[in-house]
Amino acid sequence: MSKSIFYHAGCPVCVSAEYDIINLVGQDNVEVVNIGEDRSRISEAENAGVKSVPALVTPNGNALHINFGASIIDVKG
Amino acid sequence: MSKSIFYHAGCPVCVSAEYDIINLVGQDNVEVVNIGEDRSRISEAENAGVKSVPALVTPNGNALHINFGASIIDVKG
Repeated sequence: MSKSIFYHAGCPVCVSAEYDIINLVGQDNVEVVNIGEDRSRISEAENAGVKSVPALVTPNGNALHINFGASIIDVKG
Repeated sequence: MSKSIFYHAGCPVCVSAEYDIINLVGQDNVEVVNIGEDRSRISEAENAGVKSVPALVTPNGNALHINFGASIIDVKG
């Protein structure tokens, strides 16, 4: 199985969800990307269908938005 | 690890998320509950902090709301 990608922006909602997702899916099965810090990956997230963070993009390409931390528009600033 | 519980109400958003979650977490690690059909479990979902479906309640008790299908208020009708 290829990895899922968990996009977040460092907000408290994101960090809480990150722990849960890593526990559920397994550390080795998910790449964690902070698009607040690694801004070069914002467009990659948008292309994957991410509208808000935290979000998990599954190996089959679906974007699952988890709870609601911040709109990607706000992250772009 | 105890099981997660995936609450949904049969809507298209829910069914799509259900497949993704089962693929990620593993069929044996998640109980799927349709609170549109099994209405006796609506109060259990509410007590777990579920505000909308689809939602995943993790073994440590966190409610992760995934995308947005339907408010639990609308499911209660």
